[in-house]
Amino acid sequence: MSYSQLKEIFSQISAIGHALSILGWDEAVMMPEGGADARNDAVASLSVMSHQLLTEEQNKQLIEVAEKEELSSWDAANLKQIKRNYNEAILLPAELIRESSIAGMECEQNWRKLRTENDWETFKPYLEKVVKLSRQKAQILADHYNCSRYDALLDHFEEGLTGEKLEAIFNEIKPFLIEQLVRIQKRSQPVDLKNGPFPIEEQKELSLSIMENMSFDFNHGRLDVSHHPFCGGVSSDVRLTTRYNADDFAEALMGTIHETGHALYEQNLPKEWSTQPIGQSRGMIVHESQSLIMEMQAGRGEEFLSYLYKKIPEGWNIQQNFSEDDFIAAYHKVESGFIRVDADELTYPLHIILRYEIERALIEEEIEVDDIPDLWDDKMMEYLGIDTKGNYENGCMQDPHWPFGGFGYFPTYSLGAFMAAQLFQAAVKEKPQIQTELQAGSFETLNKWLNEKLRSHGRNFTYEEILQQATGQGLSIEPFKEHIKKRYKL
Amino acid sequence: MSYSQLKEIFSQISAIGHALSILGWDEAVMMPEGGADARNDAVASLSVMSHQLLTEEQNKQLIEVAEKEELSSWDAANLKQIKRNYNEAILLPAELIRESSIAGMECEQNWRKLRTENDWETFKPYLEKVVKLSRQKAQILADHYNCSRYDALLDHFEEGLTGEKLEAIFNEIKPFLIEQLVRIQKRSQPVDLKNGPFPIEEQKELSLSIMENMSFDFNHGRLDVSHHPFCGGVSSDVRLTTRYNADDFAEALMGTIHETGHALYEQNLPKEWSTQPIGQSRGMIVHESQSLIMEMQAGRGEEFLSYLYKKIPEGWNIQQNFSEDDFIAAYHKVESGFIRVDADELTYPLHIILRYEIERALIEEEIEVDDIPDLWDDKMMEYLGIDTKGNYENGCMQDPHWPFGGFGYFPTYSLGAFMAAQLFQAAVKEKPQIQTELQAGSFETLNKWLNEKLRSHGRNFTYEEILQQATGQGLSIEPFKEHIKKRYKL
Repeated sequence: MSYSQLKEIFSQISAIGHALSILGWDEAVMMPEGGADARNDAVASLSVMSHQLLTEEQNKQLIEVAEKEELSSWDAANLKQIKRNYNEAILLPAELIRESSIAGMECEQNWRKLRTENDWETFKPYLEKVVKLSRQKAQILADHYNCSRYDALLDHFEEGLTGEKLEAIFNEIKPFLIEQLVRIQKRSQPVDLKNGPFPIEEQKELSLSIMENMSFDFNHGRLDVSHHPFCGGVSSDVRLTTRYNADDFAEALMGTIHETGHALYEQNLPKEWSTQPIGQSRGMIVHESQSLIMEMQAGRGEEFLSYLYKKIPEGWNIQQNFSEDDFIAAYHKVESGFIRVDADELTYPLHIILRYEIERALIEEEIEVDDIPDLWDDKMMEYLGIDTKGNYENGCMQDPHWPFGGFGYFPTYSLGAFMAAQLFQAAVKEKPQIQTELQAGSFETLNKWLNEKLRSHGRNFTYEEILQQATGQGLSIEPFKEHIKKRYKL
Repeated sequence: MSYSQLKEIFSQISAIGHALSILGWDEAVMMPEGGADARNDAVASLSVMSHQLLTEEQNKQLIEVAEKEELSSWDAANLKQIKRNYNEAILLPAELIRESSIAGMECEQNWRKLRTENDWETFKPYLEKVVKLSRQKAQILADHYNCSRYDALLDHFEEGLTGEKLEAIFNEIKPFLIEQLVRIQKRSQPVDLKNGPFPIEEQKELSLSIMENMSFDFNHGRLDVSHHPFCGGVSSDVRLTTRYNADDFAEALMGTIHETGHALYEQNLPKEWSTQPIGQSRGMIVHESQSLIMEMQAGRGEEFLSYLYKKIPEGWNIQQNFSEDDFIAAYHKVESGFIRVDADELTYPLHIILRYEIERALIEEEIEVDDIPDLWDDKMMEYLGIDTKGNYENGCMQDPHWPFGGFGYFPTYSLGAFMAAQLFQAAVKEKPQIQTELQAGSFETLNKWLNEKLRSHGRNFTYEEILQQATGQGLSIEPFKEHIKKRYKL
């Protein structure tokens, strides 16, 4: 009885979440600039309403009584998640939620314009406000859970993740990556496929056709264009975005494969639980593992690339100008670059480690926003040998995460990459036909395996438990290292 | 104090309204079909939340205390609207709101498909459910206000409108229209401009360019395509839609001018009141007067058409194949047709009167859904001389209004047309330069006049008061009759 009341409350919260997701997609894809102020107010109010529903006084007692009720294992797991959401929310005052929501949206909206103008100075006060509010939130959670501020933020994005775990993993992978990078940089570069222009309409068709290969359900989702690619919407209606570059078709194509990985996770979550916490995706590490297993493991593997080579529209003159080997090699190019989202899988974790080190220090108040550019420049030089001085646009202003207040989010990208390698290794070992299928453009067995091991469980297991069940051990960076050595012949 | 609490509550309600408006636009323009079930649930939940906020027990007392507070005239008027909304909402049980919301969306979603399949039998049970729930709602309101069911629905769409007023107006206009129609049908038909195909992209450009002429603010709105044209979104971000027909450019163009009229009303409402009831558009008669003053009065007047003739893209061969007089005459074509939204302004009110007569009887339980097709066929034959037997798609299944439960809405279209004629007559009398400006493609003085007389007042005055202030008398059908006689040289 108490439990079913809670379910009803969470289904209301889910309705607000549905609205916020679609509004978020709309803001990035459709909304004219002038709509921002009223939109920000509306979104802030909806966030507060959701927070109010979550923190109603009666909920505490409902949870206590529900815990004594006889529940199925799914219901019991759902109740645990309800309790986790409640506990986190009860700590944060509504006013802080509203302020954070508005500050994040304002900062992100200004970031869009100011980034293209390379205008750090005007951008800084917006970011300072977001940092201030993020520290406040983190402090409140840290006090309660008796952990560090940054730990509190990490746990929000992936239950069970801590700074200590992160530090251990990053300390181990950083020297490995820098070492491999030095080796690779001594080699000659693969050829460049950028002999465009590649018509946007044809790129879009190719993207849509690859999404079909991947079994994206177009009856429950769509593909659009946005400034920064993302996967949004709701599981019954997943909204992917990509961005097209007329000179480089791989950008949109690999971006689409990446976001489709996210989308397939959402589309294959347990539908009957779609309005309850237990029916949602696990956390950001697991989500990222699902995009990267598609993009980095399957999508950039020789098998699928061999299929893709044949699928490239003839008018693009790829098959005429490049051999299949050259084509594949081009997708395995490793190069230190400015932009995280354009980075290869070897330099990518270094982009992340850099951001992690800065944001952790920022949240722990060891540095201030003012210190970001210098730190950024130093670390880019140290890890990737790249000079970013004065180049904010392609430096510390390149990502939306800090503007919207997503501190603690970046590390999940790399942990997701490691998880993806570990999952893919296990999947191929168990079902060797995955690779032959990919060679024919089919993701069937890989999808089935992922549905069974992970997607269909919703939020029942932590990322460590999922890995344990699917691969026989918790998160390990060995499969990723093996993958890197094999793919890049190191 | 109580009043400012009420304002805060209504600004929360407005945030839900914002979400519902954008979700509504999204559903019609963007959402894949498979997203419907979860969307319907989310929208129903949000509607219930809005209803709960509106009907909180404390609100009654807050209103009573606020009524004794010293308030500015806008605040006092706002409080009156708050009270009206509260009184209407308190009568309707949340469960009925939810059921109506879901039934309306289900019926409309099925209607989209079933209409194209001309499938009345499958559609019927969906509509019956909507009718049943609409009757329930109407009955509850009617009992309270001591009026007829249909009166209660009319008052919801336009405060102060009654069945009695409607009956008087329709009784007077019906024989006039039928008589004029008989006269016109004896004339030879104007030439047909349908020598397409007219490329959709170029039609879109022309639509956008005319919207600029009309001073549509693209920083606070956008134009898209939907199955059925509408004006949605919020006043800070107005979402217009149109539909393009490659064989007939007038369809999208005049549709766009019509919806832009609605949009200009929204965009010029008092911004500082955008989250309060007083800051909203008046009602549906007034809203429709704003679209029709643009489409029928200004847009199809000789002056603007003369400008438009020169604006038609050269590649369409209009100027080569038709004289300006022929072009203008084509826009003044009168013809009995199946489709309301394609109807000219002379036959349009007959389409409305037909619907009014049917829906009034339906709501008052004098007829059942089963009786609709026969009644439709009889009246179409009587008023317009058209045989619709078995043709549901272009007969009683052509409009979304009944599917979504909008009973009482149709009459406002024609009353809006009469109001538009009355307003335009007064505007041109007061500011004769309006016509010379239209000849040059400018809507400047007309926009200013409408802003001053109507748009900037939000919900301060009833439609009768607005007319009284702007034209010196309440709603009259004389200006519409004069307009018809003049435009069609009768």
